[in-house]
Formats: sequence, C-alpha cells, structure tokens
Amino acid sequence: MTEIRMGMVGGGEGAFIGAIHRIAASLDGQIKLVCGAFSSDAEKSRRSGAGLHLPPGRVYSDYREMMQAEARLPAGERMHFVAIVTPNHLHFPVAEAALRAGFHVLSDKPATLSLQEALRLREIVNSTGLLYGLTYTYTGYPMVKEARLRIAAGQLGNVRKVVVEYPQGWLARAEEDGDNKQAAWRLDPAQAGISCCMGDIGVHAANLAEYVTGLKISSLCADLTAFVPGRKLDDDGSMLLRFDNGAKGVLMASQISTGEENAIRLRVYGDKGGLDWQQHEPNTLWLRWSDRPTEMLRTAAPYLSALTLSNTRTPGGHPEGYLEAFANIYVAFAGQVRAREDGVAPDDRSADCPGIEDAVRGMAFIELAVAASDSEQKWHSFPGY
Amino acid sequence: MTEIRMGMVGGGEGAFIGAIHRIAASLDGQIKLVCGAFSSDAEKSRRSGAGLHLPPGRVYSDYREMMQAEARLPAGERMHFVAIVTPNHLHFPVAEAALRAGFHVLSDKPATLSLQEALRLREIVNSTGLLYGLTYTYTGYPMVKEARLRIAAGQLGNVRKVVVEYPQGWLARAEEDGDNKQAAWRLDPAQAGISCCMGDIGVHAANLAEYVTGLKISSLCADLTAFVPGRKLDDDGSMLLRFDNGAKGVLMASQISTGEENAIRLRVYGDKGGLDWQQHEPNTLWLRWSDRPTEMLRTAAPYLSALTLSNTRTPGGHPEGYLEAFANIYVAFAGQVRAREDGVAPDDRSADCPGIEDAVRGMAFIELAVAASDSEQKWHSFPGY
Amino acid sequence: MTEIRMGMVGGGEGAFIGAIHRIAASLDGQIKLVCGAFSSDAEKSRRSGAGLHLPPGRVYSDYREMMQAEARLPAGERMHFVAIVTPNHLHFPVAEAALRAGFHVLSDKPATLSLQEALRLREIVNSTGLLYGLTYTYTGYPMVKEARLRIAAGQLGNVRKVVVEYPQGWLARAEEDGDNKQAAWRLDPAQAGISCCMGDIGVHAANLAEYVTGLKISSLCADLTAFVPGRKLDDDGSMLLRFDNGAKGVLMASQISTGEENAIRLRVYGDKGGLDWQQHEPNTLWLRWSDRPTEMLRTAAPYLSALTLSNTRTPGGHPEGYLEAFANIYVAFAGQVRAREDGVAPDDRSADCPGIEDAVRGMAFIELAVAASDSEQKWHSFPGY
Amino acid sequence: MTEIRMGMVGGGEGAFIGAIHRIAASLDGQIKLVCGAFSSDAEKSRRSGAGLHLPPGRVYSDYREMMQAEARLPAGERMHFVAIVTPNHLHFPVAEAALRAGFHVLSDKPATLSLQEALRLREIVNSTGLLYGLTYTYTGYPMVKEARLRIAAGQLGNVRKVVVEYPQGWLARAEEDGDNKQAAWRLDPAQAGISCCMGDIGVHAANLAEYVTGLKISSLCADLTAFVPGRKLDDDGSMLLRFDNGAKGVLMASQISTGEENAIRLRVYGDKGGLDWQQHEPNTLWLRWSDRPTEMLRTAAPYLSALTLSNTRTPGGHPEGYLEAFANIYVAFAGQVRAREDGVAPDDRSADCPGIEDAVRGMAFIELAVAASDSEQKWHSFPGY
Repeated sequence: MTEIRMGMVGGGEGAFIGAIHRIAASLDGQIKLVCGAFSSDAEKSRRSGAGLHLPPGRVYSDYREMMQAEARLPAGERMHFVAIVTPNHLHFPVAEAALRAGFHVLSDKPATLSLQEALRLREIVNSTGLLYGLTYTYTGYPMVKEARLRIAAGQLGNVRKVVVEYPQGWLARAEEDGDNKQAAWRLDPAQAGISCCMGDIGVHAANLAEYVTGLKISSLCADLTAFVPGRKLDDDGSMLLRFDNGAKGVLMASQISTGEENAIRLRVYGDKGGLDWQQHEPNTLWLRWSDRPTEMLRTAAPYLSALTLSNTRTPGGHPEGYLEAFANIYVAFAGQVRAREDGVAPDDRSADCPGIEDAVRGMAFIELAVAASDSEQKWHSFPGY
Repeated sequence: MTEIRMGMVGGGEGAFIGAIHRIAASLDGQIKLVCGAFSSDAEKSRRSGAGLHLPPGRVYSDYREMMQAEARLPAGERMHFVAIVTPNHLHFPVAEAALRAGFHVLSDKPATLSLQEALRLREIVNSTGLLYGLTYTYTGYPMVKEARLRIAAGQLGNVRKVVVEYPQGWLARAEEDGDNKQAAWRLDPAQAGISCCMGDIGVHAANLAEYVTGLKISSLCADLTAFVPGRKLDDDGSMLLRFDNGAKGVLMASQISTGEENAIRLRVYGDKGGLDWQQHEPNTLWLRWSDRPTEMLRTAAPYLSALTLSNTRTPGGHPEGYLEAFANIYVAFAGQVRAREDGVAPDDRSADCPGIEDAVRGMAFIELAVAASDSEQKWHSFPGY
Repeated sequence: MTEIRMGMVGGGEGAFIGAIHRIAASLDGQIKLVCGAFSSDAEKSRRSGAGLHLPPGRVYSDYREMMQAEARLPAGERMHFVAIVTPNHLHFPVAEAALRAGFHVLSDKPATLSLQEALRLREIVNSTGLLYGLTYTYTGYPMVKEARLRIAAGQLGNVRKVVVEYPQGWLARAEEDGDNKQAAWRLDPAQAGISCCMGDIGVHAANLAEYVTGLKISSLCADLTAFVPGRKLDDDGSMLLRFDNGAKGVLMASQISTGEENAIRLRVYGDKGGLDWQQHEPNTLWLRWSDRPTEMLRTAAPYLSALTLSNTRTPGGHPEGYLEAFANIYVAFAGQVRAREDGVAPDDRSADCPGIEDAVRGMAFIELAVAASDSEQKWHSFPGY
Repeated sequence: MTEIRMGMVGGGEGAFIGAIHRIAASLDGQIKLVCGAFSSDAEKSRRSGAGLHLPPGRVYSDYREMMQAEARLPAGERMHFVAIVTPNHLHFPVAEAALRAGFHVLSDKPATLSLQEALRLREIVNSTGLLYGLTYTYTGYPMVKEARLRIAAGQLGNVRKVVVEYPQGWLARAEEDGDNKQAAWRLDPAQAGISCCMGDIGVHAANLAEYVTGLKISSLCADLTAFVPGRKLDDDGSMLLRFDNGAKGVLMASQISTGEENAIRLRVYGDKGGLDWQQHEPNTLWLRWSDRPTEMLRTAAPYLSALTLSNTRTPGGHPEGYLEAFANIYVAFAGQVRAREDGVAPDDRSADCPGIEDAVRGMAFIELAVAASDSEQKWHSFPGY
C-alpha cells in the first residue's frame, strides 16, 4: 500500500488541534508527514518541524512558499495533500493556494470564514478536479456509521424526529480574557467568522444529524445567545428543525452548559424504531423498539456491517475514541488519494469522507442560523446551492 | 395524626390512573378512601367500590349526588377532600361541584379543559377559600425537590439554560384505532382539550422546569405536530423558551419517539454549575461543575436537605419510584387539609404541593403552545393572569 | 376479593423495617393491619398502635398475649396472619407462638437465630399445616422474576457461572458505638446470631442466586472478616461457590464497602447467554449474547411473561422500587392465605413466595459460611436437611 | 526529542496484537519501527515488512539473525529496543537473545512461559543492565494512574477490600476447534503455558489490583475451571485474596462469561472512601464516600494530577481508549530508553512502566493460581522471589 505524503499548515507548538491531526494522520501507518508551515513565525515553525523530525528544508513559515517549493519537488517526493489546521480565517486562502498548486486538501472545519468563500472554494475544487476533504470528526466513529447504515436500510422506518445536541461548558466564563488562545480566536469575528458556538460545534451537530439520517435540513428557527457579557459572538444556541422528508427536530449547541465536556449526542426516531448515540460512550449504539427490548450494539461485534467493522482497530470491549474516529477520516481521505494515484475508483471506506458539498452546506448552515436568530420571522428555508 | 378521608371521582375498574392515585393516597396510612363515584355507569361504580371494600352507601354513580350525600354526613364521617381522576373534560365540573359543596379538591392534571375554565376554577377556589391541589407528579420526587433547593440556594449561580424533555413512544402507531381507551380519549378534543402531547406531558415538562428553577417562562416559540395520519391533536412538539430572568431553554415532548417510555429529564445550567435529573433513575441527582468532579447525589443520603429527606421512605440504595413520588403529593395535600382542620399553618413539607396558580399556569401554557405553533410569528409572550 | 387481616410483632416507633413492612402490606389494598404488639414496652406499643389508628384493644405489649387474645376473637375479626419484624432472636419464638395459636406467619429474614431453630420451626409449620412466608425482598422485583423464568426456559443454556454481590458501606465505621440501634443489635450475637454480614445480606445474595438460577449451592469456600476493631461478628465476607449442576460462582457481601448503598447485583452466565440485574436500577434486566446485541428488558414491557407483568403496577418508565418489590411478597402471601380460606390452590403469583424450605436453607447457609470461614479446609458441602 | 528505534518480533500479517503494538508505538511520533522478524515463515515476514514500508534488508525471518544483524549496524541506525509480540512460549527466548545482543526489551505479557523462565530472565536483565518493560496495558489508562495516586495519597484511608474482575465471553464455545488461531494457541499448553484464562487475563487483573492499591497479594485461594469439554487449560477462575496490609479481596477472570467483552473492572474500598474503574468507560473514575456525594472524575479535567494529565492527549469528553493506554506504556518505555541514551534518570512519566519485577510477579501469580486450584488446601502464600 503506497504511503501517502502529507504537508501541514498550522498546528505549531502548543496548538491543540495540530497534534490531534498528526496523531490521527499517522495512526494507521498509511500517511507520512513530510513537510509543514506550522506557524507564520519562522522560528516557531522551524522548532515545530524539528520536533517532528522533519528535514529543515521541508519546514516553511509561509504556506504559499510551501506550496511552490513542494510543487517543484519530484512527484515521488512532494506531498500528496495538505492538512489545514489553522484558525478559520485561513482555511480558505490556504486551501486555495494548495489547490492552485496542484495539491489535494483535507481541511479542519468549518470549511471557510463565510458561505461566499465556501462557494468560491467549491468552484476551485471543481475546476482543478482535485480532492477535498473536511474533518467532521464525529462521522468517523464506527457506531455513527452503523447508525447511518441502519437508517438507510430502513430499520427505523420513516424518520420523524431528530434530536441532536452538543453541550460544552468551557466558555461558561470569560476565558477569552485570560490566556486561553483558543477561546480568544474563536470569539473573534475576524478569525472565527460570524459565529462562535454554531461555527465551532453547532455545525458538527447539524452535519451529524444529516449524515446519519440521510436527510437534509429544509428550514429552521433559531435563537442564539451570547450569555457572557462583552462577547460579540454566540456562545449558545437552540433551534427547531424541519427536514426534507417532513421529519422535525431540535438542535442544541452550547458552550456555557457548565460542567459539560463534549457531550455530542444524536437521537433519531422513526415509525419503526429509534436510535441513540453519544460521544461519551462512543462504542455503543442503542436501538429502541416499540415492542421488543432495547438493543445495545457494540463496536467490533460480529453483527455489524462490513463498513463499520472496517473502521475499527480493536476487539470489542477495548474502547476506541476520538483519535481513532479522527483517524478514520484520514484513512478514508488517504484512500481517495491512493485511488486517484492508482487511477481507480475509491472503495466504500474511502468514499465515506466529508467533502466539498458538506463544506458548502456547513457554511450555509452557520449563516442561516445566525440570520434566523437575528430575525423575527419564525422559519427560514435552507437555501439550495 | 388525624386520618384524612378521601372521596374519588373516576378511576373505576380498568382505569390505570385511578389505581395509581389510590395506592399513592394510602401509601403512608394518612389518607383513607371513604367514598367514590368511580364511573357514571352505576353497576361499574358499584363493582369498583365493592372491590375497594367501601360500604355500598358510600359508592355513587353521579359525582353531584356524591357531593350532596357526603355533605349531609356528620363532619367526622364525610370525606375531607375529593380526588379527581377522570378524563380532562370532567376535571372542571367535578372540581366545581366539590368546591361548591364544601370539599377540598386534589385533581389530576391538566387542571381543566381550557384556560377559561381554569380561570373560573381559580375564582371558585378563591371565593370558597378551600384547598386545591394538582398532581404534577414529577415534583414529588425527592431529588427534584433537592434540585429546586440547590438552585434556590444559589449553588448553580445565575441560571442561563434549561433543557427539559419528555419523550414517549406509545403513540407512535395509531393506538386510538384499537382498544386502547386511554389513547382514544387523549386524542379526542372533546375529552382531552386542544392538545394531546402538550396537554398530557408537555405541561408536566413545563411545570417541572419552572418548579425546579423557580423561574417563569416568559415567551416561547413552538412547533407541534400530529405525525400519525388522521390525528386531530398533536403527538409531538418542541419549543424554544425564554425565562423571566433572561435564561433560555428548550422543551421537547413527544409521544412518537419510538421505544421511549416516560423519559422525562431536566437539565439546568447556571454560571456556576449544572444539574441533571431524569425519571429513568429518579433517585440520583447529578451536579456538574466547571472545575471539580461531577457529583452524584442519592436519595436518603445524609447531605440532603431536611425537606428532601422528609419525602423519602427507604434507606439509600433501596430505590423509590413513581408511586412514592405520587404519594408525596398526596401526603403534602393531606398535610394541608390536616393543618386547616387544626387551624394552623401547613409545615414546609405540606406547603410544597402544586396548587391553583400552577393549574392556571399549566392551562395557559397548553393554549400558548398550540397558538404559537399555529402562528407564523416567532415569539409568543406568556400572558399574565 | 377478601381483605386479609394482619397482626404485627415488632416495628414500633422508630423501627425502620416495621414501617417498610406496613407500607408493603397495605400497598395494594388487600391486607389490613388489625392488631399489633409493636414493642415489649407497653407504652411504646400503645403509642405506635394509636399512631396507626388501631383500636386500643387490639394493641398489645406481649406477643404471647396477642396470640391468645386474637385467637379468642370471632373468625371474621381476628387476624389471618402475623408479620414478624423484630430483631432476629425473636423470630423463632414469635413464629412458634403464632403457629401454635393457629395463625399463619410471614417473617422477616433470617428466619431464626440458628439452623437448629429453623429446623424446629419447620417441624412446627409442617405439623400445624399453617402457611409460612419469608421476606426475601429481592425476589419480589419483577425483573428478578423475569430472570428466573428466562433461565428456567433455557434461554441462557446450561448455567456455568454465577456472580452475586451485595456491597454496603454503612458499617465502615463503628456505628454500633453511637446511637445507631440497628447497628447495635445486628452486631450483637445475642440478638443477631452468629453472623452480621452474612446473616443480614449474604443470605439475601445466596437466596437471590438460587431463586433466579433454580440451582442449589452444593459447596462453598468462605473468608469472613470483622474489619472494624472490636466487632464480634463479621462485617464482610467473600466466597467461592459450587452449584449442584456443576456451575461455579462467587458471592460477595460487605458492610464496609465505603460509599456503597444496597448494591445487590446478580450476574449469571450460561453457554448460550448471560444476564445481569441490579437493585440500583431494578426495572432493567440485561440479557447478553455471544453473537447478537445485548438486550435491555424493562419492567411492564409487552414482551415480558405474564407472571412478571402481574408483579408490576405502573407503566414502563414510571419506575418501581423496593417498596413495590416488598409488596409483591405480601401480595403473594396474602394470596396464599386467601386461597387457603377459599379452599383452593394458590395461583402462580401467590405460589411465588419464599417459604419454610427457604428459611431452613438460609440458616444452613449462614452457619455453613461461618464454619467454612473458620476452617482451614477449602470446601464445605452444603448439608441436606 | 530523539526518535527511538524499535524492532519487532512477531506480529506478522493477520496477527491482531502486532498491529495494536505498532499503532501504540507510533502514536506519539516518538518511536519508529526500523526492523522486524514478523514471522518464522520468511515469505510472510518479508510481505509484512514490505507492507510496513521497511527496507527489505531490515526484515528478518529469524529473530536470532535479527539480533546479530542489528548489532552490527552503526549505533545511530540500529534499533534501540525490541518489542516482543509472539505467543507466550517465545517471549523468553526472544528476550534472552535481544538482551544478550545488547538490546532493551519491551515484551507482551505474560513475561514468559513459566516462573522458572521469568527468574532466569530477571538474572539476564540484571546482569546486562538493560531495560525491560512489560505491556500490562490497563495500567496505561490515565484514570488508573489517578486511582493509584489517590490511594497513595491516603484519600481512601486504609484499604480493606479489593474486588477485581475480568469477564470475557469469547471462549464460551470451542473456538479453538475452528480457525480462531488465537484461541488455538492460548489453549495449547506448549504455547500458552499452564494456564489460559489466568495467563491471559487473570494476570492483568492481579497486576491492576496491585498497581492501583500499592499492596501485594500475600496469599490466595483459587478455583479454576475448564468449562468447555476437551480443554487442557482453564477458561475461568475465581479466587479469594489476602493482601500484605490485611486487606482482603476477590479476583474473577473468565472467558466463558457469555456476552461479556473485555470488562475489566477494579473496585477498592478503604476506611475513608472507595473507588471504581472499568474499561468499558475508561475515562471515568468514581470515588465514593460515606457522607458526601459520589464523585465522577473525568480524563483531562483540571483537578487531576500532573502525571495523569501527562498521559492524556485529548480534551475532556473526547474519549481516549485502549490504543492510547497502550501508547502510554510505549511512551514511558521510550522515555526510559531516551534517558538511558542521555545518561539521565527517567522522569516520573517514564519511570511509570511495568518492569522485570512485575514480570516475575505475574508468572508467580499464574503458577500459584494453578497450584492453589489443584490443591485441597485453602490458602496458598505468595512466595517471595
């Protein structure tokens, strides 16, 4: 199996999400970090690269320089794709530079700073014909995939009700006034965009609901809030949802739910059954029925689908977590790159990776949520793009 | 301690809730069932009374007749209060008849068929000066009381977010077309009023949220649905809430959440802490904090408040349930009756019982929920009465 | 349905278990407390009886006097049976007096102070032909009954492994040195017998294991301990078990497991499946399988057996607890009494009540446990009686 | 930070545990696989090495050859240590060969095939002065480390009771008769040693109990069983334990507990508090107290110790699992190797890694368990070595 070569933009020393991406990328030995522009501070980027055992010549302080330099390397040496792990406002320019230089892109979410940027990004992706992936991490969990497959197979019947929530408590106090760098940029419109809570976690919740149900949100009614005084962006939001099949739902995302960690949870109810998944114990999927016992499905069990099992590394009862879910996204994307190299179609596991349409949809969701919250009109239709 | 004498209207053979009320009333040996009009079918009422070991002369088929007959009995024999356990449309006329005949009333919820009736009922209660109680059962759980006290004491800080939900699955299919009598009347506007789901369980959720937080819902935005074809009343509903202190929230009630039982749950988040209670394991109350471990409080533990402990009958770890919570309402109401008899003020435990203001508020909630759902206007203010 | 009349010995003011028995007895309106000798202190017994609204003439201070006086009453007035809720050392003499006076007996456990007493009690029960029941409370839970039925139906296959545990923490400190009356008598050999922990809760665990599996413990190896200095009786014990079908097991009972409440739990594994039940959430029964999802069975669900459902009072999701389980024992025993009165055989629900053979077996277990613990011999056979 | 170079023996294509070790080793980017003898089948070893992107010259089919070849490489190229992931019977000879060739060793458990081998191994380790580590994986979980630290700090008081269990169900049927290679060798005395269940998982349970409590098992009483007909080795076992401070305990390990996965769990009770940890939800540690609420501690929370936090990679609520725990062992061992290279003492995190004394103790435990089970004598002392 060809080793896929990755470059990284962002994720220098001290950046939480950069380290997560690197572990996820390398977990299965299919992807090798070969270069990076880890910081616009040249010395910091250099130190980060050295700490990662990269040759100094492959460590950059400017992502544009990196794209050009890598493009000049022989095909067998240069990176295959760029992982973008910067704050939101750089997602678009870095992705654009990478694509224009001929590199595939795997980006952290949200895809861009605005819907407009996302639409431009789609044009570039489509015109270059290159691959684009997005780390909607929660869709990487094996039991989330099983949930999706069960619904697609009709086991729950016609979906009627969707409840998705993502409560956190880490912004219950004004962390941005201290030295919490992540809080600072996520609450800064210039770096985060028009939303903090919806842009950071609400968009995960919306994506999870759509991924699992196979439905699309058709309209929504929203109430976003900045509870902590002085904030320019929302730290909490709730919405009523309507889906394209007539189902209804609720989405809650919050960063001021004191004492909550990253408690993303999805419940779906059809006319035949219901399901329940939550990150707190991600290796379990609950199926509920009207007239027989609730079933507790567990990762790696023999009754799961082949796709689910292919996203698991350990035997049942040896828990997998967030890093493994994240790695599943990387493995799928690497599989797409490899298939492209080999001139074949990606297999099912590789194809199962969020892409540019999810990127656009996510940005549309964020903008619609903010607009709906600002409006006295009850329902706001999800626009088609 | 004086034994309090109770009459019952409704709850004849086969009626689920009547049996529950009788167990709850008698659980602590403080209340004795002395008479009843269990059914408007005289023979059925007679059989029910005989099964309950009542003297035939105290078993009636007409509640008006019962009021008159009981009123003629010596003070030491006649009932002290009437428990009303009929379908909704009879709550008001029975309560009115009882009050006008001089009897205190403890009614199942919702209090009446309409807000208008509830307002009239309040006038009657106030003009007669008699006692009125309402079985918002979930407020009877000891750990719900502890939750209320903790918030009142400021332990969670300023309340910002309230999430209350009550999912059921029993109406996911058209049960009303079969021989499910409860489904039939709850979905019949003539007997149930203008709402099924909100009138039956949404009102419980709203009451629980207000009881525990001590806040009042000030406005709401609602989306109610009748998912099962042919239904005239809602079987599901979700709303966005705003509270009078600026807190926000979500209320979900559903009868089509396939596989759910009676999973009422409340989460409250303040700027200092959060709490979580659910009926599935009612003897546990979770307190969450930003910087110290989540705490699991348990019924009967020594660190609970005196009021909480007074609502518990078993040592810690010997679970109590729904019947005991229900009994706590009865014991409180009986305590009010006894205090009235004794010419003293009720003690704290007795005073802690839903009353006529909760009755009015519940009906206002139901009507506002339906109106808001039918409207294209986003927010609807909770009217003052 | 004939109301069954009950007398009580023990359970005066302040006695925890007496109040529990009275609630359990009266819960379903089938049993009426008509007399009692609540304390050997005449004034205390009188006050207790008055608080229970008993006529003064039916309140006694001497249980022998009560037996004689009740026996002289007309058949339609005198009690049908005696509930014994005293400390252990009085179980036998009270039961003997009751039986000799012609009254059925329902006793708290352990049945007697010694195995020898239990064997004498069996002789008396058999010679009088009267009914004898024992409140092994945990067998009253509906899901425990379902567990028993599933195993009897072969769903788990051949049972191989049984793990039963009952950890408590209430005796982790020397409570007996303070004013904890229950701790004082349970740790006093004259009142409790030769064991505290095994006599109080170990015997429950052993009974639960045998009741659910339908197997008998054939031999055991034990290690009992008095961890708190100065104690004459055990406050903790663990054993290895062997059953009559070749299954093996472990029994743990402890009163020094700090922070545990009454966490009795049973796990059974057969060659086809496993089950798991615990009092902490008693309305759930888990079934585990090798090749399909774990199933979560819930009280009142339609897929349960008729016997299980007949032991439930509330709809699914409205939890039942310890008092209801206790009441199920009372209802079964009352059913036996009624059947005897009516000259018919008891129905399935009534027959499902621990009796004199369980009483003997329990005392044999306690004595064997203590002897085995004191011995350097590894295995000790459960003697046949 | 110097990259540590690892060689591997065993773990060729299709071997479950080899892949786990490789992921764990590489997870943090501190260790690089540079060579391996993945199988004694030369072609299979070659294919495995190629799949891992190793240069052909560093892939061997004979581990002795590997040791010699690597020893001849320049110091800056040859491996630092060997990871041994073969079936049990090869652990000793491979470790011996590696140590005699001058390489540190990190071995899967149990350390050897017999206690005698373990004692010889210790002599070799001591005489060579090289590093030896053992993958008792469960001690790698952050919350297990927190548990150990809390007990060491005296928070539970004097430890009295230890309950450790490891139920699995995968050998409930005769898997060894099919094509389950792992079942086949684990039940073959020539490859597995004198025990299957105790050698595979019982030893984990014993190690976990001793690691967390800081106590040593001083004597035990055991009952091992081969439930499935035809087996030469145990598939289940239970024991009573006594610890060197007077504490008592129970150890249960089972491979025939149908429906269980890898449900290792530890409970410890002291005179001040209790704790509970289980792999099913490994990011949670429960602390129980007699007079205040049970506390739920969570990975990555600010109130944890520095050592615990240093073993965590993700923010709270983003679960970590088995691979991360495994990686913590590798990181600690790599830290020891690096410290040795740098001529400094290992830091706290690196020092926290099972070593040769744990290896000897594990083999002593297995042999004592089997001997005790075969004996009619009740207690068997844990010998000193």
